Amino acid sequence: MNQLRWDPTLREWVAYATHRQDRTFLPPAEYCPLDPTKPGGFPTEVPRESYDIVVFENKFPSFSPNAAEAGGVGDPQMTVAPGRGVCEVVLYSQDHDSTLAGMPEGRIRNLVHVWADRYEELGALDFVEYVFIFENKGEAIGVTLHHPHGQIYAYPFVPPRPKKELEAARDYRAENGGSCLHCDLLAGELDDGRRVVVEGEHFAAFVPYHAHFPYEAHVYARRCAPSIADLEAPERRDLARVLKRLLVGYDKLFGFSLPYMMVMHQAPTDGGDHAGVAHFHVEFYPPNRTADKLKYLAGSETGAGAYIVDALPEETAGKLREAVGAAR
Amino acid sequence: MNQLRWDPTLREWVAYATHRQDRTFLPPAEYCPLDPTKPGGFPTEVPRESYDIVVFENKFPSFSPNAAEAGGVGDPQMTVAPGRGVCEVVLYSQDHDSTLAGMPEGRIRNLVHVWADRYEELGALDFVEYVFIFENKGEAIGVTLHHPHGQIYAYPFVPPRPKKELEAARDYRAENGGSCLHCDLLAGELDDGRRVVVEGEHFAAFVPYHAHFPYEAHVYARRCAPSIADLEAPERRDLARVLKRLLVGYDKLFGFSLPYMMVMHQAPTDGGDHAGVAHFHVEFYPPNRTADKLKYLAGSETGAGAYIVDALPEETAGKLREAVGAAR
Repeated sequence: MNQLRWDPTLREWVAYATHRQDRTFLPPAEYCPLDPTKPGGFPTEVPRESYDIVVFENKFPSFSPNAAEAGGVGDPQMTVAPGRGVCEVVLYSQDHDSTLAGMPEGRIRNLVHVWADRYEELGALDFVEYVFIFENKGEAIGVTLHHPHGQIYAYPFVPPRPKKELEAARDYRAENGGSCLHCDLLAGELDDGRRVVVEGEHFAAFVPYHAHFPYEAHVYARRCAPSIADLEAPERRDLARVLKRLLVGYDKLFGFSLPYMMVMHQAPTDGGDHAGVAHFHVEFYPPNRTADKLKYLAGSETGAGAYIVDALPEETAGKLREAVGAAR
Repeated sequence: MNQLRWDPTLREWVAYATHRQDRTFLPPAEYCPLDPTKPGGFPTEVPRESYDIVVFENKFPSFSPNAAEAGGVGDPQMTVAPGRGVCEVVLYSQDHDSTLAGMPEGRIRNLVHVWADRYEELGALDFVEYVFIFENKGEAIGVTLHHPHGQIYAYPFVPPRPKKELEAARDYRAENGGSCLHCDLLAGELDDGRRVVVEGEHFAAFVPYHAHFPYEAHVYARRCAPSIADLEAPERRDLARVLKRLLVGYDKLFGFSLPYMMVMHQAPTDGGDHAGVAHFHVEFYPPNRTADKLKYLAGSETGAGAYIVDALPEETAGKLREAVGAAR
């Protein structure tokens, strides 16, 4: 069952996917459903003895292309819609114990091509309005499978956070003679320099001045490219290089493989009123505030939407820069 | 150091409080800083041998009344302000091992009076725009002290989530001949009945049609009272009664003391453009999706703002109603 319900108090959709309750939960490594299928072994999600990078539809999807029409409920306050969309799993490698940070730059570059391809193909579906590419990494984030993988949600609506960001960028453009909010932010960060972590030829990574997590980092395209699919070959190469350097730094920071959420914000594919304002970027939110303490999204963050951060971006960027081994 | 920085991409304030890194973290029970001070023992936060209910300023506050002016940074994108506000701790009882659910109704009623008092006193401060009363309960939510207590954040701004709710209610009122969104929602829930959990004389608890967490419950005032301070004596009594019944049900649900966030949404105290639209209510977000599995706010929720829920409100409300022992 994939259903959307409208929350009239926050004016946003909430997605219900009841079959997800039964999803595979931290199986022992020898039963990993994301490994290749061994000869004579149990059938995994990938019916092959080896693979490079694989994309397939999530078996326990939050949205489904065939979601049934939901019956109305009569009450005008209670609006329902089918949870129509696509949820894909992206297997980064057949090596169960690897992580994105440990992969060769060439493999990350191939992943950039895969992400760009999925953005275009899923975005072209008429019921898809936003293609959201992300990775949840680590048990602290709630991952249920350790095999290195990311996910793609092709939503039937522009989700609240990118929507807010697009609206801010649209208004900024109108009020600032057509300037891009993200281009100006990036210029300010590079000019200030204190929060910059990695400077590539086409991409730069920094802890934003207004970070919501202590070790949050954003990876911005220097050129105002609206989506990952719009990146030229040299830009894709540099994105892979900058991601790799940042990720290696994350793992050096506390001396262990750092959990994080990685999310990509880019242009909606709905052809709607957000056209011409998106600026492709990747955001990382590691939950750790120290090596052994996590930042929880509790009462203030969840119930009030107000983030409290116990470290200044200038300090955390300095530590990250050191971990990355970048001179400044 | 208490500082606010403006995020121009989400158009919201982020609060920085660097001294919070050193806050007391899950001390052994015999060193609980929220217990009464025992004769000859170490001095706790409460310099008395016994107490009933105590309110004091948080030693590691996210906002402080004396926050220093922050120096500007030159860049017009980077806006900073002092993190001026008040953070209070509300000790529910001197009994270290008790919980709100286990307290007599009379004590909860006294807490309602305390909350109302704090709302009025903090709301009257000229730098306070919103008084947010909440409780983080359980290690799953990230609590650092087990002693039964809640918190109050008196923010120098109307925080994003209540702001969104107030704007929705304001627009609803304008579009629906002056009707209150929350009154109409409550009428719809009571009329439908499938998601109602507790019905009191002046308050009702239900799992909203558009719940963001499987066992989320909202406790609405039947009368359109803007804040907890506006409640009459019989309403305060009934609020305590309905809270108690819901909380006892929560603990029966899985047979253990259920973690949750409890947050109160009510009128801002800024005298601003949200006047006349608030409807006092309490929201509970338990993180459990089953007895042993938690709902994480990961990529989709945090990076896209889109909530995925794996149980329908009608089902979870039925289980909660059974736990509460309410006939329907």
